[in-house]
Amino acid sequence: MTQRPNGPASPNNPVGGATSVPAVTLDDVRDAARRLAGVAHRTPVLRSRTLDALVGAEIFLKCENFQRIGAFKFRGAYNALSRLSPEQLARGVVAYSSGNHAQGVALAARELGSRAVIVMPEDSPQSKIDATAGYGAEIVSYDRYTGDRTAIGRQLAEERGLALIPPYDHPHIIAGQGTAALELIEETGPLDALLAAVGGGGLMAGSATAATALVPGIRMIGVEPEAGDDTLRSLAAGHRVTIPVPRTIADGQAVESPGELTFAINRKLLDSVVLVSDDEIRAAMKLAFERLKIVTEPSGASALAALLAGRVDPSPVPGRPGRSPRPPRIGVIISGGNIGLDRFLELLG
Amino acid sequence: MTQRPNGPASPNNPVGGATSVPAVTLDDVRDAARRLAGVAHRTPVLRSRTLDALVGAEIFLKCENFQRIGAFKFRGAYNALSRLSPEQLARGVVAYSSGNHAQGVALAARELGSRAVIVMPEDSPQSKIDATAGYGAEIVSYDRYTGDRTAIGRQLAEERGLALIPPYDHPHIIAGQGTAALELIEETGPLDALLAAVGGGGLMAGSATAATALVPGIRMIGVEPEAGDDTLRSLAAGHRVTIPVPRTIADGQAVESPGELTFAINRKLLDSVVLVSDDEIRAAMKLAFERLKIVTEPSGASALAALLAGRVDPSPVPGRPGRSPRPPRIGVIISGGNIGLDRFLELLG
Repeated sequence: MTQRPNGPASPNNPVGGATSVPAVTLDDVRDAARRLAGVAHRTPVLRSRTLDALVGAEIFLKCENFQRIGAFKFRGAYNALSRLSPEQLARGVVAYSSGNHAQGVALAARELGSRAVIVMPEDSPQSKIDATAGYGAEIVSYDRYTGDRTAIGRQLAEERGLALIPPYDHPHIIAGQGTAALELIEETGPLDALLAAVGGGGLMAGSATAATALVPGIRMIGVEPEAGDDTLRSLAAGHRVTIPVPRTIADGQAVESPGELTFAINRKLLDSVVLVSDDEIRAAMKLAFERLKIVTEPSGASALAALLAGRVDPSPVPGRPGRSPRPPRIGVIISGGNIGLDRFLELLG
Repeated sequence: MTQRPNGPASPNNPVGGATSVPAVTLDDVRDAARRLAGVAHRTPVLRSRTLDALVGAEIFLKCENFQRIGAFKFRGAYNALSRLSPEQLARGVVAYSSGNHAQGVALAARELGSRAVIVMPEDSPQSKIDATAGYGAEIVSYDRYTGDRTAIGRQLAEERGLALIPPYDHPHIIAGQGTAALELIEETGPLDALLAAVGGGGLMAGSATAATALVPGIRMIGVEPEAGDDTLRSLAAGHRVTIPVPRTIADGQAVESPGELTFAINRKLLDSVVLVSDDEIRAAMKLAFERLKIVTEPSGASALAALLAGRVDPSPVPGRPGRSPRPPRIGVIISGGNIGLDRFLELLG
């Protein structure tokens, strides 16, 4: 991991306490992959000729809905916790999350013999609250629209001596999330493009770090819900902007502003960010159910939604010298599947 | 393939036209696997620590709901059609099926440049009728409770010179279905038990043929819906018996009597057949959705239902010499996922 000379530690990056913002490299992702070996699932890459025909491309779906805790978030959480000292693990950890990071930290803490306190919005999906408590974590609730989860998390950390595990804006989290893209490309070989959901930007930054190092020229495409377009706006502005709390079915992407480190990486490595509506996400969830036979939560389906809604150019790409153009090979990270049946019916019934 | 000296060709075995009933061997399954390479998906084997903890065993889920057409049936259908002569393929094929075999034959015909006529019960799930027609097949409907699909199929075969592709009672079908268990055990290594749904018995017979040859001593456990217990009753009687048309949500297992060849194989190779209620199947579908993030149709979840309902002994098995007993390693074939969202909600909403 190299050190960048500029930038103080941010409020979203309290673990490190460093005085410079570290970059994340492919080596960091590979190191995270070694730590996760035998602990995280190496999730399958699904193919569907129906989907290929619909889009006019070769699609490779990296199914992180089959990851432990039902989403990619376990990767980053475990990588971060695995680097704490025995003393830190003995005191415990605290995290704030709209859901999947909570479960990731809770399970990682249990796996490493630590204890987790999780600060969750009180309107989080009940299935996520139940699952987090089920991993043995203590839940502290707050109001998503009036409370300040960062302040609550820091207060708990100070009062109880807990290590705060941020949801995305930390190099260990980013490197851990990047292992999904690393596994995907190890399995598929070079891709022409890779789509991933953008919430705080950790999955995207980790994916872009791994993918652009492995496949020079790969198009990295971030996907945000229309109501949660903080990264798109920030890219347009050239600096991080804050939007009102997004109201979208994609609760995992309901973020007001990009992380400092994730934005720095994504600004450098992304080709574009595209938006999808809640209805387009619903349509993708339905197709995933009926044709792909997989369960996706709204945030988990948003990258697929972008593909299905025509936000990504499927134009044939040049073949090898002397060969005719071929359909593009596009990777899509299905980032999570944590949704109760009742909520699924509410959204799609 | 060896020839057994006894037994004429049965009405359910019209393709072969042989005067003896051929047995099926592991070599036949391996030969089918070679024909299916690059055509069928090598479906993933999913693990879930949640499921392992619930059952008290190590569970390996072979996910044929991710197979082409959404169920294992493509394997047998393609294997059977791939052995027809160019002249037979040019004239076309006919099949009768409650759904998934229909899609398997329709897609196999399209892949091999042939034409398929499918005889389907008029109350088949609409999603299955639509999908079959979508593969370019001609649909002929009949009443499941009064019509004789075998007679209709034979009449069409005679009138139009079509090759009749039976749904289960043929060695090429059985060998093709057996490739799922072959792939599973190639990936997992030896298993202590393998569960599969029993309808006509093709999946079970193929699985048992492959698994017992690869893993001597493996327990083969068939699963039937309570209302469709024709194979269990036939095993008890020592010969094939016929039951009233079963009324169960497991439409893929609504069979009145086992096949002649499939019963002969299953009688020899199965350790037991266990029953599950429609409510137990519903509970398994819900768990598959919420915890495993996969979509299963009722027949596709019945083997999992048996495991969850405690129908399979999870007692620890002896470890290696000098080692303590270990949890059993149990394979489960998730046989299909063809269910529309509307029907899913109707069953579980």
